[in-house]
Amino acid sequence: MRATVMHAAGDVRIEKVPDPTIIESTNALVRVTRACICGSDLWPYRSMARSDRGQPMGHEAIGVIEAVGADVRNVKRGDVVVMPFASSDGTCIFCHEGLPTACVHLGFFGNQGNDGAQAEAIRIPYADGTLYPLSVGQDDALMPSLLTLADVMGTGHHAAVVAKVGPGKDVAIVGDGAVGLRGVIAAKRLGAARNVLLGRHSDRIALAREFGATDIVSERGPEAIERVRQLTGGQGVHAVLECVGLTQAMETAIAITRAGGAIGGVGAPQEAAMPGSQAGFYHNVTVGGGPAPVRAYIPDLLPDILEGRIQPGRVFDRIVDLDGVPGGYRDMNDRKALKVMVRP
Amino acid sequence: MRATVMHAAGDVRIEKVPDPTIIESTNALVRVTRACICGSDLWPYRSMARSDRGQPMGHEAIGVIEAVGADVRNVKRGDVVVMPFASSDGTCIFCHEGLPTACVHLGFFGNQGNDGAQAEAIRIPYADGTLYPLSVGQDDALMPSLLTLADVMGTGHHAAVVAKVGPGKDVAIVGDGAVGLRGVIAAKRLGAARNVLLGRHSDRIALAREFGATDIVSERGPEAIERVRQLTGGQGVHAVLECVGLTQAMETAIAITRAGGAIGGVGAPQEAAMPGSQAGFYHNVTVGGGPAPVRAYIPDLLPDILEGRIQPGRVFDRIVDLDGVPGGYRDMNDRKALKVMVRP
Repeated sequence: MRATVMHAAGDVRIEKVPDPTIIESTNALVRVTRACICGSDLWPYRSMARSDRGQPMGHEAIGVIEAVGADVRNVKRGDVVVMPFASSDGTCIFCHEGLPTACVHLGFFGNQGNDGAQAEAIRIPYADGTLYPLSVGQDDALMPSLLTLADVMGTGHHAAVVAKVGPGKDVAIVGDGAVGLRGVIAAKRLGAARNVLLGRHSDRIALAREFGATDIVSERGPEAIERVRQLTGGQGVHAVLECVGLTQAMETAIAITRAGGAIGGVGAPQEAAMPGSQAGFYHNVTVGGGPAPVRAYIPDLLPDILEGRIQPGRVFDRIVDLDGVPGGYRDMNDRKALKVMVRP
Repeated sequence: MRATVMHAAGDVRIEKVPDPTIIESTNALVRVTRACICGSDLWPYRSMARSDRGQPMGHEAIGVIEAVGADVRNVKRGDVVVMPFASSDGTCIFCHEGLPTACVHLGFFGNQGNDGAQAEAIRIPYADGTLYPLSVGQDDALMPSLLTLADVMGTGHHAAVVAKVGPGKDVAIVGDGAVGLRGVIAAKRLGAARNVLLGRHSDRIALAREFGATDIVSERGPEAIERVRQLTGGQGVHAVLECVGLTQAMETAIAITRAGGAIGGVGAPQEAAMPGSQAGFYHNVTVGGGPAPVRAYIPDLLPDILEGRIQPGRVFDRIVDLDGVPGGYRDMNDRKALKVMVRP
């Protein structure tokens, strides 16, 4: 089959690779009908050292099950399924607690020997715990939004949950990328009174307003902090969704959090020594977050997508086939595209 | 009157100073009957640059009200009161939300022009919001435990609340100082299943066991982390009370927290760039904490002291009069005393 392999920074290729097969009795094979290029795929795209073997890419998908191992019970051939960015066994204590991204059998697609999703097909470890079957056809018009359940919508929701967004709370979202925009949706969905997006790209801002952002702060650093304080009677917001993962973003997040407030950080830390809650110690600011347990959030978020209350799929602004994937990386990296959907 | 003034590191003096007076109509004057030397008083004791004016010391007290301003309603002359380490107006939005240490009129005793409590008397700003009247006589046998409501018991409790301690949770307390030992009490009180103290002083360990510690870890660094993991089936604890405020302590706290767990940090950060939750990102660890809203916790903790269910006053191992205060600092600094009570 054909799959996306990254060989070095800037060097993404579509290659012929062996077809995936059932190896363990808990595996499933999924024919990928939708995948994405993720903002996090751009980190290796900017920095990866050359590798002969290369790195399979892609960790968000919807597809159709082609085969299952003998011990798979919850999904069957022909099912349309969401594939979250990480595999989990569904049975361990962390899965039961709703944190499948701490599963004792956790695996990240595209890493640790796992297949990538920007491919014609993919082998799924622990299919019962990982895949979520959908009651829609594979060409349903809701596919773009359903695809976001694999990562970005669940990740934005996680930031909002960790930041304790609730009815009447003032909320700020740091970052207007694909996750930040879903953070706006998540904050509105959970009842935010004020829903402030910190971002500076006009097309994204327009979308954020449609998603429910009440205020836009396009300044940076101290000016951004001052502006959020002005908007909130000098106090800052109750909840901040940090959707970037850089030091300045976290510093801003801490500085705009109201005393006693909370930050949900879902931007994977891209610097070694990012500030944490200790920087907000004197204001009793709490900082949490991490890889979002998106599999656990699907039952909560899915009805809102199926019934049209949220439309996180609107963030996709480009659709490519596999041959278009290298160009999709380039355009996302050049900020000519916000989020690219792949139809292998 | 006589009061404690620090002039430089190691230079603590008892001096004659002007008697406090009612300045604002919301003030009260309190004759101090019990005060403490706090672990945090040792920071300037080790580092303060010489000052001609000096720094009034002490921020925890019980006393008797001698006079109140015209607008004071909740306390009256003759009342025995607890004085939390910070003053708060009791009326602002943060006080109403239970976070008086974010009060818009917040003041720290011994700082910002406020009197210190290691003195014969002290002026209290915003007496109605700050002082908590007790229904006991000034010589009640419970005084040592009641005195801890001014800071250390409430601070240990805050760490436990922020760390989300609850019934059946595995808990670790990093630090066997005066706050850490109250953290053991707080964790037990809130239902901790496993109550692990990380500490290495035999007298404190003995006390911790009486307070409910189920396990003692006296190793440090990687060995301590390994030991806690062994105690918890390899997973770490649900909740960590970080009661030190140093980088190594926070690093240990993050490393021993179970995926999805929480850290309540109440050791004021003593280093500029302490690790925060970002260090625990991949385990979805939450880090919070800050100056404890001890005033807000008194109604919750007081009945347990009055009815003898908790005895946080047992941590005091030395009682001095004002003349004994300089020696008390020295002995706490030399670890010859754990926590010194002052009876002016």
